[in-house]
Amino acid sequence: MALIVQKYGGTSVGTVERIQAVAEKISRFLKDGHQVVVVVSAMSGETNRLIGMATQIHDEPTPREMDVLVSTGEQVTIALLSMALHKLGIGARSFTGGQVPIRTDSAHMKARIEHIDEQSMRADLNAGRVVVVAGFQGIDPEGNITTLGRGGSDTTAVALAAALKADECQIYTDVDGVYTTDPRVVDSARRLDRITFEEMLEMASQGSKVLQIRSVEFAGKYNVPLRVLHSFQEGPGTLITVDEEVDMEKPVISGIAFTRDEAKLTLRGVPDTPGIAYKILGPVGEANIEIDMIVQNVGADGATDFTFTVHRNDMAKARKILEQVAADLGARDVLADDKIAKVALVGVGMRSHAGVASRMFQSLASEGVNIEMISTSEIKISVVIAEKYLELAVRALHSAFELDKPAS
Amino acid sequence: MALIVQKYGGTSVGTVERIQAVAEKISRFLKDGHQVVVVVSAMSGETNRLIGMATQIHDEPTPREMDVLVSTGEQVTIALLSMALHKLGIGARSFTGGQVPIRTDSAHMKARIEHIDEQSMRADLNAGRVVVVAGFQGIDPEGNITTLGRGGSDTTAVALAAALKADECQIYTDVDGVYTTDPRVVDSARRLDRITFEEMLEMASQGSKVLQIRSVEFAGKYNVPLRVLHSFQEGPGTLITVDEEVDMEKPVISGIAFTRDEAKLTLRGVPDTPGIAYKILGPVGEANIEIDMIVQNVGADGATDFTFTVHRNDMAKARKILEQVAADLGARDVLADDKIAKVALVGVGMRSHAGVASRMFQSLASEGVNIEMISTSEIKISVVIAEKYLELAVRALHSAFELDKPAS
Repeated sequence: MALIVQKYGGTSVGTVERIQAVAEKISRFLKDGHQVVVVVSAMSGETNRLIGMATQIHDEPTPREMDVLVSTGEQVTIALLSMALHKLGIGARSFTGGQVPIRTDSAHMKARIEHIDEQSMRADLNAGRVVVVAGFQGIDPEGNITTLGRGGSDTTAVALAAALKADECQIYTDVDGVYTTDPRVVDSARRLDRITFEEMLEMASQGSKVLQIRSVEFAGKYNVPLRVLHSFQEGPGTLITVDEEVDMEKPVISGIAFTRDEAKLTLRGVPDTPGIAYKILGPVGEANIEIDMIVQNVGADGATDFTFTVHRNDMAKARKILEQVAADLGARDVLADDKIAKVALVGVGMRSHAGVASRMFQSLASEGVNIEMISTSEIKISVVIAEKYLELAVRALHSAFELDKPAS
Repeated sequence: MALIVQKYGGTSVGTVERIQAVAEKISRFLKDGHQVVVVVSAMSGETNRLIGMATQIHDEPTPREMDVLVSTGEQVTIALLSMALHKLGIGARSFTGGQVPIRTDSAHMKARIEHIDEQSMRADLNAGRVVVVAGFQGIDPEGNITTLGRGGSDTTAVALAAALKADECQIYTDVDGVYTTDPRVVDSARRLDRITFEEMLEMASQGSKVLQIRSVEFAGKYNVPLRVLHSFQEGPGTLITVDEEVDMEKPVISGIAFTRDEAKLTLRGVPDTPGIAYKILGPVGEANIEIDMIVQNVGADGATDFTFTVHRNDMAKARKILEQVAADLGARDVLADDKIAKVALVGVGMRSHAGVASRMFQSLASEGVNIEMISTSEIKISVVIAEKYLELAVRALHSAFELDKPAS
């Protein structure tokens, strides 16, 4: 008998029929003798419907009231799923975030979980009931409803699994696992049986949208085995777990992530003096713009070029700030480019293998793809290229690193 | 400066635009220097939408989960109304039933309020904020979400007004007050400026659907002045209050209530022995069927006829039970009739005036309306007649008791 935490996203519970199908699915785990805690999102479309009403009323709705509003979405689902389980003769009990309780800080719309009291859930599990928990929400020290931010239901599931010391946390979604890269771009993309937390983090942060990055961090931190599965197709999915064993047969690269969400900003002809990076990035950070890659070239004549990437939505704002900075610093000019894409090779095997970067650059060069920026970490090499080369680059790399061939 | 509790029903907050209009309305009370607590229902249609999903899943959804489900309706409205107030630059804070807290017993879907802690609301009022409370819901001693039953938002408003010792509880609705009778039946029906709690109770229980009967009971018990007003039309509405002064000019009758919701059941030829009423009504009550009027005629030959009314929806069920009872008691037969209507004259003035009944019966007789059952209380006379005579009877009585003439 295992204790399993399962999470079903908005599409998996998007209609009454799908909620009934989820109940059937849960019943099979019970028949196998498992205890089940289920975390659910709002029915698909519901959160947007609620936000739509709010923005009709107020262009910047108060975060506290947004949380009161959108948290109703998951509350509806927990009630309906509990009813569907009852209909199958299964004992079940719903919990809002506040009822668990999932205690968070008071940062509305982006709260962080501080503590989960698992006693109440444990009592229901021990009484043979399925525990159905509203994802994405919690309660702050003053009793206000908080939410973890969009997609936060994954984080709820992992946090509950950690609190309950569950055997596995299963994230049901509309894909059957984590792939070597996006199958919509590369036909021969292959489902991975296993991937490490670190690799998954790099895949997620690089734009592979299977799991919320915070949930993977959480799972890694508390060592919760995490499995990504398809809601309505049978299959083993992908297990995300600790993997410290050095496996000689292990491929160097696990997957290729990419994103078109970024834009590149360059400040040209900046005086190459100490503290220049802070002078440039300080005002950008103060405007709450997140910076991803940063490259500073050694320049000539005491001047340098400074380039970084931000989310595309922030490009205009960042450009405006940079133009002021450029004037203050006496820089030559500001360039902005949102026709870029970032491609990253990810793999823990990279640590013990030399030559990954050169193979990557060679592969791109042979396709005529110019590399505009490079950034590396222990288990990742990212490059920025022109957006038009994205598919070409990903396919070339997928083939060059033999990701289409099954792991031995 | 007065402390006013206002309640807006589902139609009054049925769209984003109406919620904005309610916020505007509230702002005018603030400009006049009042403190305002607002109780809101779910947006019209929302509760039915939620119940519809539940009944697709389970023919008898668990009451606990129904409360988790339907309580989201009001939660959406409090968030949106708070945002609309913020948009007008007005400080406001939403409260779910659990956040107030409104403490109830654990009778899901029909919970009773046990205690309201007004400190938290008071703190917001003193800070100059509007307090926006979800109607219809509370929290039980174990932290479960409860609801007061449909229409219970009126009760929430009155209970909050009592707890806060508010100066007035205003119920905004789609009519501009309490009328002498239904204006759709009698053209000359007239809005009452004032009515007593007792009269309002009889009007409500007799089918005048302006206010929830429990809220009137509550208001009477705690002596909360209650005013019924139109949400979007200006006007004084009707004040429901204590009125013990004997006013010689006061009309005998305040209003005429009627309902088509009942059905009549008769057990003929029952042995006229002690305890017979219990033998008949016991099984009906055990089946959770509510009984309204009861008439037992003195019979001949040691047998009697026994007649009572139930809600029309319960007629078939009650008839089935009665047929078994009839067999057990050796009664002659069971008659059931749902083509009836009940008409009631209501007025505190009736206490000190003789002749109301005879004037009523005379008026009906002159129109050729046969009276099938009669029931009286201190401030009410009800009769059951054939449904087809309903409009005729109400118009005749409205005119006979001069209800179309303004009170002096």
